[in-house]
Amino acid sequence: MTFSSKLIEKAVEAFASLPGIGRKTALRLVLHLLKQDKMTTEQFTTALSAMREGIRECITCHNFSDAEQCQICSDPRRDRSLVCVVENVRDLMAIEETSQYRGLYHVLGGIISPIEGIGPSDLNIESLAERARAGDIREAIMAISPTIEGETTIYYLSKKLQPLGVQVSAIARGVSFGGDLEYADEVTLGRSIVARMPYEIK
Amino acid sequence: MTFSSKLIEKAVEAFASLPGIGRKTALRLVLHLLKQDKMTTEQFTTALSAMREGIRECITCHNFSDAEQCQICSDPRRDRSLVCVVENVRDLMAIEETSQYRGLYHVLGGIISPIEGIGPSDLNIESLAERARAGDIREAIMAISPTIEGETTIYYLSKKLQPLGVQVSAIARGVSFGGDLEYADEVTLGRSIVARMPYEIK
Repeated sequence: MTFSSKLIEKAVEAFASLPGIGRKTALRLVLHLLKQDKMTTEQFTTALSAMREGIRECITCHNFSDAEQCQICSDPRRDRSLVCVVENVRDLMAIEETSQYRGLYHVLGGIISPIEGIGPSDLNIESLAERARAGDIREAIMAISPTIEGETTIYYLSKKLQPLGVQVSAIARGVSFGGDLEYADEVTLGRSIVARMPYEIK
Repeated sequence: MTFSSKLIEKAVEAFASLPGIGRKTALRLVLHLLKQDKMTTEQFTTALSAMREGIRECITCHNFSDAEQCQICSDPRRDRSLVCVVENVRDLMAIEETSQYRGLYHVLGGIISPIEGIGPSDLNIESLAERARAGDIREAIMAISPTIEGETTIYYLSKKLQPLGVQVSAIARGVSFGGDLEYADEVTLGRSIVARMPYEIK
């Protein structure tokens, strides 16, 4: 694309550097901002700057946080004996979105992957053991992808947490609720049969 | 969506206020910026602020410009006797993209639309007449959508420009090059037959 303005060109490049935004979309966004008054762009950039400058890592669970401790960790209505262990903040947000979980979290910041050179010391595992040692955790729910790396991580964590008196569980996996059997992938369907549950008449 | 951080929530809202960006995409963009170092966000917001603060309207053609006159108007290699009249900067950019046109432009800033209450005085028409009066324009090419409003605008402009010695033309319309006849819309196909051109052996 050729632009008759360096300022527009740089702004298009800025948007296009974001994932999933091509140059055509970037140009559309820039022209949108140019159509609005200057305040709109100022509010937009201020929100982003304030976020990037102000955001911290929760000292307890490593979630993104506005303060030393995140809103979830400092919420007195949460069950403090229950900790859901997730790979990253995105997974934490997905679980929060369900409104089904009222315990705390622990964000690992990745999973153990020898291929990518990520060992236990690269992840927030020691701080999880600390929390267990402090006697705060009754149960740790592993909400981690069931890949080889995920299983390795879950195995490592249970070896670490169980001696500290923490009960380790993993989230249920199976065919989606409302999902058609024929569209479920083989591994999920196979494991769903192996991990079948007794039927309860309600 | 529920966020455990006000800062993230505001940044997501900022992205989601842009056209075509939903809250899920907005969150993905925010998490991307959080994964990068602070410099990335700073460069991003700086490019947008500099663009919005610095951009001006070219005093000659009303294109977006970094200076008093835009790069196109101040390019000595351009044919100054040829002016392509467009509705908006996006259309100008689309024509520039083709690399087929080496004349100047004039951005109207819209088209005449009695329904929307847009009259000739709301558009950059007087400044176009000025340019014609200054004797700079030999030919004005109307690159305006062939809607009722567009046709009205072209009619108005030719009434204004022809007495000033400007030859008025309109861009060719017809079935796309390489386009299948069966997929062309009826109006385009019908007009293409009416406006057929003599076949020249090359």
